[in-house]
Amino acid sequence: MIKKIDAYIDEHLEESIHELTKLCAQPSVAAQNLGIDACANLVGEMLKKRGFMVEIVPTAGSPVVIAERKGRSNKTLISYNHYDVQPPEPLELWESPAFEPTVRNGRFYARGAADNKGNIVGRLYAIDAILNEDGELPCTVKFVIEGEEEISSVHLHEFVKANQERLAGDACVWEIGGVDFSGAPIQMIGLRGICYVELSVQSASDDVHSGTGGSIFPNAAWRLVWALNSLKGPDEHIQLPGFYDDVEAPTEKEKALMAKLPDKAEYYKERYNLKGFLKGIEGGLELALEAVYQPTCTICGLTSGYQGLGSKTVLPAKASAKVDFRLVPNQTPEKVLRQLRAHLDAEGFDDVMITFLGGEEPAKTDPDDPIVRIAVEAAEDVYEQPTQVIPMIGGSGPNFIFQKYLGVPIISSGSGDSESRAHAPNESISLDLHIKGAKHFARILYAFGKK
Amino acid sequence: MIKKIDAYIDEHLEESIHELTKLCAQPSVAAQNLGIDACANLVGEMLKKRGFMVEIVPTAGSPVVIAERKGRSNKTLISYNHYDVQPPEPLELWESPAFEPTVRNGRFYARGAADNKGNIVGRLYAIDAILNEDGELPCTVKFVIEGEEEISSVHLHEFVKANQERLAGDACVWEIGGVDFSGAPIQMIGLRGICYVELSVQSASDDVHSGTGGSIFPNAAWRLVWALNSLKGPDEHIQLPGFYDDVEAPTEKEKALMAKLPDKAEYYKERYNLKGFLKGIEGGLELALEAVYQPTCTICGLTSGYQGLGSKTVLPAKASAKVDFRLVPNQTPEKVLRQLRAHLDAEGFDDVMITFLGGEEPAKTDPDDPIVRIAVEAAEDVYEQPTQVIPMIGGSGPNFIFQKYLGVPIISSGSGDSESRAHAPNESISLDLHIKGAKHFARILYAFGKK
Repeated sequence: MIKKIDAYIDEHLEESIHELTKLCAQPSVAAQNLGIDACANLVGEMLKKRGFMVEIVPTAGSPVVIAERKGRSNKTLISYNHYDVQPPEPLELWESPAFEPTVRNGRFYARGAADNKGNIVGRLYAIDAILNEDGELPCTVKFVIEGEEEISSVHLHEFVKANQERLAGDACVWEIGGVDFSGAPIQMIGLRGICYVELSVQSASDDVHSGTGGSIFPNAAWRLVWALNSLKGPDEHIQLPGFYDDVEAPTEKEKALMAKLPDKAEYYKERYNLKGFLKGIEGGLELALEAVYQPTCTICGLTSGYQGLGSKTVLPAKASAKVDFRLVPNQTPEKVLRQLRAHLDAEGFDDVMITFLGGEEPAKTDPDDPIVRIAVEAAEDVYEQPTQVIPMIGGSGPNFIFQKYLGVPIISSGSGDSESRAHAPNESISLDLHIKGAKHFARILYAFGKK
Repeated sequence: MIKKIDAYIDEHLEESIHELTKLCAQPSVAAQNLGIDACANLVGEMLKKRGFMVEIVPTAGSPVVIAERKGRSNKTLISYNHYDVQPPEPLELWESPAFEPTVRNGRFYARGAADNKGNIVGRLYAIDAILNEDGELPCTVKFVIEGEEEISSVHLHEFVKANQERLAGDACVWEIGGVDFSGAPIQMIGLRGICYVELSVQSASDDVHSGTGGSIFPNAAWRLVWALNSLKGPDEHIQLPGFYDDVEAPTEKEKALMAKLPDKAEYYKERYNLKGFLKGIEGGLELALEAVYQPTCTICGLTSGYQGLGSKTVLPAKASAKVDFRLVPNQTPEKVLRQLRAHLDAEGFDDVMITFLGGEEPAKTDPDDPIVRIAVEAAEDVYEQPTQVIPMIGGSGPNFIFQKYLGVPIISSGSGDSESRAHAPNESISLDLHIKGAKHFARILYAFGKK
């Protein structure tokens, strides 16, 4: 059967690219509220065409497209995706316009090609092949396709919590997936959490001349610098009392998987022109573990006073910083937020206001879960290379919601590669990997349905 | 004689406003290199009309207008002014356009009205009166009118140093002057110095996703925060080794003058919505002395990474801060710059680059100098109120250049008041104070010439 399905996929690339072109030509920028409803409807139509029962469920933000088609076995696989995309700006850096999909040199270029419309269309491509050759799906498939992933999935938590029964399943395929820079398939099964805040200070109603106020007026920029300095010093130790209490070390199994990953030290140093890494770490397993199993406190932005060319002698009344804390199991954004407020107050920084800009919990799937083996074996059959199982990545996402409310293990599958430029101009996917991604998803459905 | 001169001034306001209109209608924005040469020529013509020998001397930047007219006595009074102005932006906040002078409710509105074209025209107004009624000046008058005051007088130092003989004189009237918010004349005879720097860090070639780099990549914003924190902590003590070594305390005479100034504590608190001042100072002489006789380290601006709305999970490769140090006698910007570099290196911040954006030395005139008495008595005759002699103000300027190379005491005279909005939209002078400023300058020339 799988040979027939592969043949179907090989022969129908043009139709799938045609569908992807239609989907990517529909802008759907959540941050700009651009084309959201139209794109949700388009995705809904695409699912209906495959015999799915579709509902477009409104939320306080973008609607969520949920769809279900029964399959042969009593197993249910959930596919989590999102139809919203990052803003296309800066437009001038695109070689072809962001919402005018173009194929060049075996790659498909458009905003959303990699993140995440390519994976939606790729999974439908696999489903077409299965339905055409086999007449039914090997298992029940449920799609949950939200429209706010690029703005921190602001309403997904409530949505999943409120729809636990409807969304119930046995495993979930995450929106992401693909191969690393060497072409080897990767299986990402854990994400760190995040607590993103803005810290702001207003020390006076207006800026004042630095000659007038320098010796006697409180300065918002200084207050901010001192508050930030109290969070973390050059030793990189985060000073919030209790911050590390809940940190769970990686298991021996996870460490063993991390040890098998290629060492990225030289790549990072060359790509980013780094002299070295923090804490004197040189590379190898130590670098890999530090990169994803440690919580962080990162200043993402600073703004205050005069920022133009040359000099302006102003004492700023306002200053602010964007700060993200990446969290590891078992930290939670709510607790870190409380620890942050308590720390600032205790250190005398009750003038520093905290604005919570988004939080996600860390979550990971047991590498020994049978669904992981299924995804790995499926990949090795398609890509003919060993799979790198990555038990934890540095980024964050709403996967914890599915693990928390639906209790499902989560795997990854998709067509991304190191050239995909998700979030950047000239986002693209390889046509070859679009085919391979569909074959991978089809194999997962069969192996999972058989169980 | 002075009565006749006062009468001339009273009767010729219209002509002086006409001349000021012409001068303010000529843009001369040094920062934007707009109208500089045309304005220098216009000022030169205005001086020639009064029988001055004029030379417009090129520099590597804006030309300097120098002018001289011999007088009755062998004394020479220098008038330092500048014909350049601050940029007019933000344009939308002007009630009438910045370069279309307008009189409303007894005030003359235009960019440069107060700073410093009003004082140039006001001094010529006095000279017209004297020449008309008396036929000659009571002393020799030399004008030095530069075109780069608003961009830190970048070439004035070299210019004065190279022209010491030509510019020689016995005293100097500074560009500024006028009355305080109560209408009492003020005599400002000292200015703090300044050392303005940009501190910048580049930690990598490019920004990176904070999920990737947060635990392992150096972060330019953190490096900057820690470097700034090493300069000064919440106790406000500046940590550069040796920084306070050269600080000279105010003399008893200066303290006595400071004690006579009105207490600005309540005004500052209300105007700027301050809860209090630094170091727990409440007001009075303590606040007045702290405000101007202490050196400072002020963050004027901070910039790094993402500064827009909401969140972006980026780890910034670049960060920078604008920092000014206000200096008191006998500190120098050169020495502070050396101390700053040495301090950053010693604290492990050799990755923090220092860009020197301008420096001026502190300088003060002895309050007992006879020229100060002349200016005070002249003011009391014109304004019919006691003069506040301010031995030191918080701001900075190139006065030290004249004291250093020409050895002259420096006083102030002009038409500014608390409504003048120098550097801001709707800059203006009061027509009444324009008249009084001219009368004040005329009296200074007579009293000084007699000596």
